[in-house]
This record gives sequence, C-alpha cells and structure tokens, in this order.
Amino acid sequence: MKQKNIHSPAFKRITVTDPLFSHYTSIVAEKLIPYQWNVLNDCEPDTEKSFCVANFRIAAGEMEGSHRGMVFSDTDLYKWIETLAYCLERGEALEYKAHAEEMIELISRAQESDGYVNTYFSVNCPDRKWTNFTEGHELYSAGHLIEAAVAYFHATGNRHLLEVACRFADLIYIKFTSGGEFENACPGHQEIELALMKLSDCTGEKKYADLARHFLAVRGNSSRFLEKNLRDQGRNRIFPEFADYDARYAQSHLPPAEQTTAEGHAVRAMYMFSAMADVARTYGDDALVESCVRLWNNLTQKRMYITGGIGSSGYLERFTVDYDLPNDRMYCESCASVGLMMFGQRMAALTGDATYYDAVELALCNTVLAGIAAEGDKYFYVNPLEVWPDNCLTGTSMAHVKPVRQPWFACACCPANIARTLASLGQYIYAQDEKSVYINQYISSELCSDVRGAEISIKLHSDLLTDGKIQILIGSDKSQPFTLRIRIPSYLKNPAFLFNGKAITPVIENGYAVIAISREGEQVLEMQGSVAPNWMAANAKVRADAGKIALMYGPYVYCFEEADNGSGLPLLYASGSSCAVPDAPAEGLPGSMPTLVVQGKRLDSGVGDALYGSPSFRLSDVELKAVPYALWCNRTPGEMIVWLNAVVP
Amino acid sequence: MKQKNIHSPAFKRITVTDPLFSHYTSIVAEKLIPYQWNVLNDCEPDTEKSFCVANFRIAAGEMEGSHRGMVFSDTDLYKWIETLAYCLERGEALEYKAHAEEMIELISRAQESDGYVNTYFSVNCPDRKWTNFTEGHELYSAGHLIEAAVAYFHATGNRHLLEVACRFADLIYIKFTSGGEFENACPGHQEIELALMKLSDCTGEKKYADLARHFLAVRGNSSRFLEKNLRDQGRNRIFPEFADYDARYAQSHLPPAEQTTAEGHAVRAMYMFSAMADVARTYGDDALVESCVRLWNNLTQKRMYITGGIGSSGYLERFTVDYDLPNDRMYCESCASVGLMMFGQRMAALTGDATYYDAVELALCNTVLAGIAAEGDKYFYVNPLEVWPDNCLTGTSMAHVKPVRQPWFACACCPANIARTLASLGQYIYAQDEKSVYINQYISSELCSDVRGAEISIKLHSDLLTDGKIQILIGSDKSQPFTLRIRIPSYLKNPAFLFNGKAITPVIENGYAVIAISREGEQVLEMQGSVAPNWMAANAKVRADAGKIALMYGPYVYCFEEADNGSGLPLLYASGSSCAVPDAPAEGLPGSMPTLVVQGKRLDSGVGDALYGSPSFRLSDVELKAVPYALWCNRTPGEMIVWLNAVVP
Repeated sequence: MKQKNIHSPAFKRITVTDPLFSHYTSIVAEKLIPYQWNVLNDCEPDTEKSFCVANFRIAAGEMEGSHRGMVFSDTDLYKWIETLAYCLERGEALEYKAHAEEMIELISRAQESDGYVNTYFSVNCPDRKWTNFTEGHELYSAGHLIEAAVAYFHATGNRHLLEVACRFADLIYIKFTSGGEFENACPGHQEIELALMKLSDCTGEKKYADLARHFLAVRGNSSRFLEKNLRDQGRNRIFPEFADYDARYAQSHLPPAEQTTAEGHAVRAMYMFSAMADVARTYGDDALVESCVRLWNNLTQKRMYITGGIGSSGYLERFTVDYDLPNDRMYCESCASVGLMMFGQRMAALTGDATYYDAVELALCNTVLAGIAAEGDKYFYVNPLEVWPDNCLTGTSMAHVKPVRQPWFACACCPANIARTLASLGQYIYAQDEKSVYINQYISSELCSDVRGAEISIKLHSDLLTDGKIQILIGSDKSQPFTLRIRIPSYLKNPAFLFNGKAITPVIENGYAVIAISREGEQVLEMQGSVAPNWMAANAKVRADAGKIALMYGPYVYCFEEADNGSGLPLLYASGSSCAVPDAPAEGLPGSMPTLVVQGKRLDSGVGDALYGSPSFRLSDVELKAVPYALWCNRTPGEMIVWLNAVVP
Repeated sequence: MKQKNIHSPAFKRITVTDPLFSHYTSIVAEKLIPYQWNVLNDCEPDTEKSFCVANFRIAAGEMEGSHRGMVFSDTDLYKWIETLAYCLERGEALEYKAHAEEMIELISRAQESDGYVNTYFSVNCPDRKWTNFTEGHELYSAGHLIEAAVAYFHATGNRHLLEVACRFADLIYIKFTSGGEFENACPGHQEIELALMKLSDCTGEKKYADLARHFLAVRGNSSRFLEKNLRDQGRNRIFPEFADYDARYAQSHLPPAEQTTAEGHAVRAMYMFSAMADVARTYGDDALVESCVRLWNNLTQKRMYITGGIGSSGYLERFTVDYDLPNDRMYCESCASVGLMMFGQRMAALTGDATYYDAVELALCNTVLAGIAAEGDKYFYVNPLEVWPDNCLTGTSMAHVKPVRQPWFACACCPANIARTLASLGQYIYAQDEKSVYINQYISSELCSDVRGAEISIKLHSDLLTDGKIQILIGSDKSQPFTLRIRIPSYLKNPAFLFNGKAITPVIENGYAVIAISREGEQVLEMQGSVAPNWMAANAKVRADAGKIALMYGPYVYCFEEADNGSGLPLLYASGSSCAVPDAPAEGLPGSMPTLVVQGKRLDSGVGDALYGSPSFRLSDVELKAVPYALWCNRTPGEMIVWLNAVVP
C-alpha cells in the first residue's frame, strides 16, 4: 500500500478551549506537574514514597543508599519530564523548567560512561545488567527516557537529554544488533520500539528505526528468547506473579507480523502495536500493515469495552479471549487505554482512515478521563464498568478494583501516562500531511500551522452533544489551496454541511468529509447532524452484557451512580426504546456535560430478608439519572454501573 | 442451655440403598480407594506425582531423598486411611486392609522418638519444627493423623495408629499448654481441634478435649500470634500468596467466641466452627454456643450459595462480605462444603434442631456430589454456578475455575475429603441419643442400632422427589419405648403422616416430627407431602443474582448445560411462574434423577456481528432442559449455568 505521511502539528500551536477538556489540560500544568514533582522528590505528605529522584542521586554517586521502589521507577521522572515538555511547549508550568533542567543534569550524571542509564541496575546489581529481560524493564525504561528526551528537545530546543538518550540508544544498538548472546534479545515490556521511532524522526538517524524494527523482528521467533530468559533467572526473580509467565503475556508467542489476536498484558500489547504501525509506515512493510489491521480489528471488535477500556483479566492485567468482557473484575488499565489511543492514532496516520479515531475517542472520552479525578490529584489504574465498594477488599480476587481514586501508587505508571496524554492532547485533535489538515476529534480548540507555505488557522467550535453542530473557522494568509479533512464520527447521524453559508455535499473519503480550501482570508465550515442519547447493546457473545443496555451520548458512555440513584444498582431496568432526556449538568462535575434522565424501573424480587426464596417479581417506576462515565466518582463515592438490565418484550 | 448428647450410630450398621448415593458410596470402595492408593504410591499413570508414601519412607530412614510435594502431603495418606476405615467398617475394600496396616507401620516408623510425625519437617528442615504456624501445617497434619487413627480404631479395633496419634497428641499437649514461647500458639490451619475432640471421645482422655479448647481460647487473642509468626518468617516463606496475609484469613482476628461473621479461608473457618460446636457441647460453654449460632446464621443466611457452596473469592479461597456471591469466579471449594456439612451436623447435635440439616443437605446434594465425577476418577475443587469454558484460562484471574473435573491435584485435599464424606455418609442420615433415633436425610438406607437395650431396625425408603413420599419400616426386638424424630425438610410442603396405616398428627419439635415407638415387631410410618420443582430468587442484595431465577427440586439445585441447551446460556430467560416438568433422567447420568423441562425464551439482542450496536431485543420460545447440578459435566463438557434471567412483568 502507499504509505501516508500524516503527522501531528507542533503542540505549541494548538490551544484546547473545550470546557471539559481544558479543565483537565489546565490541571496538568497547575496541579499534576507540581504534585508529581513533590512525589518524585518524596516530599508530598500522606503519599507513598517513590524514591525516584533519590535513586538518581544515589546512581550519580551523590547520595548513599540502595535503589528503592519498583525496578522501573526511573520512568516516573522521564514521564514527568515528557509531560512538562508538552506544558512548556504551550507556555505553561514555566516555573518548573529549572527543575527539569536540574533533573536532566542529574540523569546525565547518573549515566554510566558507556551510555547506560538505569538506577536500579547501576546501584543495586550492576553485575546483572542485561540479564533479566522478562522482568528487568531496562529497555522499557530506556524507551521512556528517549520519549522524554525527544519531547523536551521539541519543546525547548535543549539537546542535553537528547544527547543522553542518543548515547544510551547507541549503546543499545551495538549491544543488540551485533549478534552473539543478544542476537534474539527483545524487551520483556515493549516501549523502546516506539520511542526509537520517535528518536529516529527527531534526529534523522535511520539506525534507531532499524533497531526498533530489529526488536520487532526477533520477537516471538523460534529462539523463545523471553521464556528461556525467565527460566535462566531460576528462583532469583523480581515479580512472583511471573510464575504463570507465558509467551502470550509479553506478545512473544508469535512474530508480531504473524499475530492475529490482541494477547497478554494490555499495555505491553498497545505499545508494541503502536511501534508496529510506525515501523510498517516507515518501511512500507505490507505484512506488518496487515498484521496491524488484523490486531486492531480483533482488539476493537472483540476485546474492547464500550468505554474503550481493554484488559479483561484483573490478574496480570491482560487480554483473555474474544467477547470476554466482565464488568466488575476486569483490569481496563488507564495506561492501556492511553496505549489504545496511541495505536489508533498511528493506524490513522498509516492508512489515512478516520474510523480508527472512533476507538481513540471512546478511550479518551471515557476510560482515560475517568482515570483522573476532577481535582487532578487522584487516579484510577483499574476502570471497572460496575463497582460495588463493599466487595473491593484487599486479600481477595477483587483487591485490584478500587472504588475510589487513589493518590499515587508504588507502580506509578497511570498518573504519569494520563498526564502526558492530556498535556499533548492536540496530537489527537489535529493532524496534517503535505496538503491536508485533518480534524480528528471534536474538542473545541484552535490550531495555527503551516501548510504548503501558507500560514493557516483553524478555530474549531463544537456543540456536538448539545445541538449536533460544529463550526470551523478557517483562516489562511495565502490563496495556496489545501484540503481540510474532517472526520465524521460514527455517532453523528445525517451530517449536512454549510460552507460560507452555502450547503455543500463534500466527498466522503476514508471517513473524512473532504473540503477544498483555496482562498485566503476567513471562511466558515459548519457541520450539522444529529447526536442523541442512544441505548447500546452488546454482541450476543458478550456474556457479561447479555440482556443489558448501556447509554451513550456521542462518544460519551454514561453511567448510573449511587449518588443519583440510590444503592442496589443491579436491580435497575430500562427499556432500550425509552428516551434519555438531557438535563442540567450535575453539580460539582467539571465541564458542562448534561446529565441524562431516564424513566426506568426498579426490581423487587419479593424474597425479603431471606437469602433465597420464591420469586415474586415486581417492577416499580423510578426516574434514573446518568452522568458521564468519565466523571464518575467525583461526588459522594458509592456504587456505579454502566450496563442496566433491559426490559425485554 | 441444656447440652444434647446426640451422636452418630456406628457406620457399619448403616447401609445406603438410594440409587444415586449408593452409586457414589460404592465408587469410593471400588474406585477411589484403589485409585488414590496408586496416586499415593506414585504409580497411577498420567497423574501428578504425590510423593506421599515416598516421603514417609524417607522420614522412616528407609529411602534416600528429600520431601517433595506440598508441606501437608502427609494428610493425603491419613485421609486415605480414614476413608478406608469407613469402607472396612461396612465390609468393603477389605483387600486394602493389609496395605493400610503396612502404611500404619510405616507411619509409626516415621514417628520420631518424642512422638513427632511430619515428613516435611522431619526430612527437610528438622530445625524448623514448630516455627512456622501460619504456613507449616504441622498441627493441621496432626489433626488428620488423629482423625484417621480414631476411624481406623473404630473400624477394626486395631490400636496401633491410635497409639501413634496419642503419642503425638501427648507431645503437642505438653508443648502447647506449658506456657513459655508457645503460650499463645495456635494452628495456622485449623483441623486439630475437631480431631482432638474425636480423640477425647474415643479414648475418654479429657486432656485432648482440653487441648482443643485451649487452641480455641488462645486464638485471636491480643498476642496476635499468627501475624507475628508470619512476620518472623521474613522472606523464608512457603506460600508466596501469603504476602496478603491478614488475621481474618485464618479466623484469628477475634477470639472465636466473639466472632460474628464467617471470615477468611472457608475450609479453615468450617473446621474451626465445627470444633467450636464440639467444644461448646462438651463444656456446656454458652458463649461459644451463641457464637456458633451467630456464625451459622451469618454463613447460611448471607454468605452461602444456593448450592451450599461457600467462599466467594477465588483468590485465597475465602469469604468476602455479606451477599457477595458471584457465580463464575468464586471458589466454592468442595472441601469447604464438606466442612459446612460437618459444622451443620455438629450444630444439630448441639441443639437438637433439625433445621441445621437443611444447609447440610444443600451442600451434600449439590456441591459435594458435584465435586466428584460419576465415574469417581475426577474432581472439582472449585464449584462454579456458571461456567464458560473459553475464559477458564491459565495465567488469568479465572485460572482457578476448571471447566472439567481434574484427575488429581498437587494439593489433593478435595478428592480425599469427598471420599471420606461419602464413605461415612450414614453419619449424616441417622443420629441417636439416649432415647431417640433421628432421621436427618432422606437418602434411602437401612439402620440397625441399639436403643435403651433394644435392637431396633429402620428401613428408610424415600421417593421424595418423585412423589413426595417417605416410608419408614421400624423394627424392634423389645417393647422398650423410644422416640423416632424425623426431620421435616424445608422444601416438603403439607406433610401428612400415616402410622401403621392410620393418620396421625405428630408433635413437631425443633423441625422434627416426633413419633413415639413403644412396641416390638415391625411398624410402618409414612410421610407424604408435596415436593415440586420450584423457582427460587435471591435476596435483593445478592447483586450477581439480581433479576435471576434458579430451579430447585427438593434439595437439588438444577442447572442448564450446553449439552442440552446449546451455547450462549446467559441469553436464556424463563418466567418464575413457568412450570418445570419432570422428565426422564438424562442418559449417562447415575441414579434416576429426573430432568426438568421448562418452556423458556432465548434473547436476540439484534446487534448482529458488531461488538456494540443499537438494541433490538427479541425473545423466541425455546424448550429448556435442566439436570441436577450435582451431576453436571458428566456428559459432553461445555457451558453451564444455574441462574437464568427472569422474564419480569
């Protein structure tokens, strides 16, 4: 296939104005950066210690002690720098720039003379470097270092961290492409592959892309590298749960190009699939493209929650089988949905097909937003579609499900991943290639960019949820023609277009309405369709949702909380033909998302106080109120449910 | 309260004639004893090695090597001897008596000079005896040795194993009742307490009962013995999953007499509760009686599955909170239901109240029977109420649920526990005290016993399921008066009585119909009531069963299998007012239990191949067939479900 060259505009030229999303994006600079800075430095009160900066000081020889925290704790600092870079690029959180540069100096002092950076191995067990690929996370951590370095360079022009990252990447290149004992070595947790693609783009050095491609090429080959490597650890293991390690867990059961189903640990899978899409695009590798399409289809058509959540097994945070989507005990990690956004964005860039953004939008508008509190200071790692706080008990099989967001975890991947996603949100809204600007998400915002030498501006104002209407002001300083491609979301019915006040019928191509822009000055494009609250049902094979319905409004899944509907939510029924009426936003929730009011039913089984008894079912009328899933658990905590029982004929 | 002196008649004088149960009881002698003998000796092909007998040979100094298998693997041999004892007592499996005595000799040679018996500690780490109470299972294993010894003595009069057990119990008595470092020591897995009560009954030695009482008295006291003991192990631990250890797990969060809810590991809880009931009865301890009643009520009225299964968390096989009864991911260990039978039997013995046998009957007729294959050679440890074979995957949170019975597990508690229960089934059918004979279960059978010097016989013929009728032939060789107390099961409606052909209206006392028998010769008592298939619903707080119904026929829960109803069982609906019509037994299942035929519905959500879409629900008529849960998975394996969606008005 012909490869596309679709990329993101510079973040500094995108401003989010949407009331809901700007609430969250501004929280990143105002609250998350300071909060996470304190956590990294172990000076946030009442929060689990991260030891992160201390580990770097020890590695740099400036402090005594041994490494503490998770083996991959370095990545907390890297993701903080990456997130800060996106803020700095937009002129925010400038007061943290000095801290970032101090940290970059520290990282460079913690780098060993050969380029190696990893505080766990440098400090605690230098003799065990590059021995434990399944558990050690060295290449994973290197990947986050590279991503931070690229972001920081783009944002500030400061090359120091980029140099650190390149020295490390050069070491890794030599180590892993020179044959010998590492001939078939690949990371136990993917991440470096997509980072190397960014580094190659940023530096123009093809060898970094070659290394990413190499790591994908040797993965899952007949050497069974990772399985052997874990066996080689004997009893000297880092993660006891890896007793159940299987090749699928780390997507090394088959070569990536031959994989057909989304398997194993969901975050690992998403990072690998993202890299596969990048490598496929860069090298024009059709086999890899086909594999990406197959995996995407399996993922989004058989293994994804309606919220864009993924990972059905709480244990080992992994995929299970097609249509296995339990609502209360799954994992649905926030990071996995961030990874789904990354994969979808890359698939759209690879194919020019807008429909990939449907799942990106689901993940963003539901699971990723739900992952962070309205106040920005607490997070969900696990994003259930049904919660009963009483049974979320430590020491049981529900221990991983938390009924309220948590301040900071020892394994701090999700807060940082959500933060960097929100800080760089513009990349999911806009894209461009040589001659087109793409609008992929209907999040009100502004873009300035350069297309074919013309300085263009886009002002996107979206009232999609309230009146199904989008207005786009397009400005250009030249009469240089370009194409505006605006995604038609799957939930927008009967879209009609007005261009400068005149009805037009644009060509629809790959899910985009294609509008030719050819004159300078300001022009107005309007898209008007209908977006109504909508009941959804699941495929008959999804056992967990049999006979159930969920409420959506555009891309937003709605849920029913105890705060609005009392307890005992599994006793609620609604008809799939009943109306859900938009009502005033719930007090205390950010943005201005409407609530939805439904005339529903509540079941009384007639059993009374007995545990079991003869049924005498009675339904009584109740008015139900739903709020966006993205905003759940921002008021009085309690039960929550997405899928209601359907009244069936 | 006035303590009762209700006990079991000698097993040798009870013969089970019921077609279903005699199938299983005869399997014990014919198949389980030989099969398990081979497994214990590691000569059963295609079965995981137990190392059990080999460990004893090594401990006896007759073989080289170290202990292999679980730390409590000795109990596999003890439970085999106990089970065989019950068979021998009834004149079955006589050809294994020589093997048993050979094993008893071996155990006595493996006993150390001070009386200590435990092959794991004797062989692998003699310096660590009595150091690891939370994980080491030394007292647990001692308990099973004692139970085997008592059973073997009762069956054969052979005192050898009883002497081994007494020497060990004497050692334990001195060790744990002399103050000092073991002042507050108690077992991490209860079992020895109820065994010591049996040993005290058998030998007349009060000190063994005192020791049982002591272990209950120090448990959960302010010394926090078990928690400290686990901490003392440091990283030198046996079970990695004990990282999550909490005092509730082993019911040491409070003194037993103060506990109000069934907590922690379900088998540990049942063994402890059973011992509490025994100790309460023996010592007339009213506080302990009250605690037993509270715990029983919590257990059976808030934390028990309709199948008599218990233990809602797959992880750590434990209780969670009231009304948390998920159907697919729970544990519901076969051993826990055996333990529930033990506890209920003791509560009835303590109080003289027949209603305790309702839950005993549920556990027996559903979970315990389901735990063993019709052929007797495969077992369920976990007894789900809903199974979808596709998602029972290793390395996921459903790994503990097996869609088909397994041949033998490394942790071989369940097969042996089911075997000893079936081999001693008579104890649950009949009981007696000074002047009464109790009929507690309607399993056709015959009893001969001695009551107040008279030789009496009971021939119980039960057609409860087919025509609600029970006939009891009572014979006595003297005109010595005694009382026959026959339990009126909760599911038997409008029972009427004929005594020697004449209608009588017996007094009903504690759930028993009380019939005075005063003359010699044969008399006939008939009880006739109605037992019809019955839909049941759960308490509104049981979220997993909201809007669902289950089918029962007498004490038997019925289930719907893929073999009869196709796949996609969660799409089935039935009305709680629909009739379930008894039909011919399913081919290939033991006994002659009828199937039940229901006119039900199957839902089509109208979503087609998409993962999510607009609902267009349609119900179509289907004839559904249910089989007893006890017999599920004895034909073509597949999906199974107990709770169907209810068609609600």
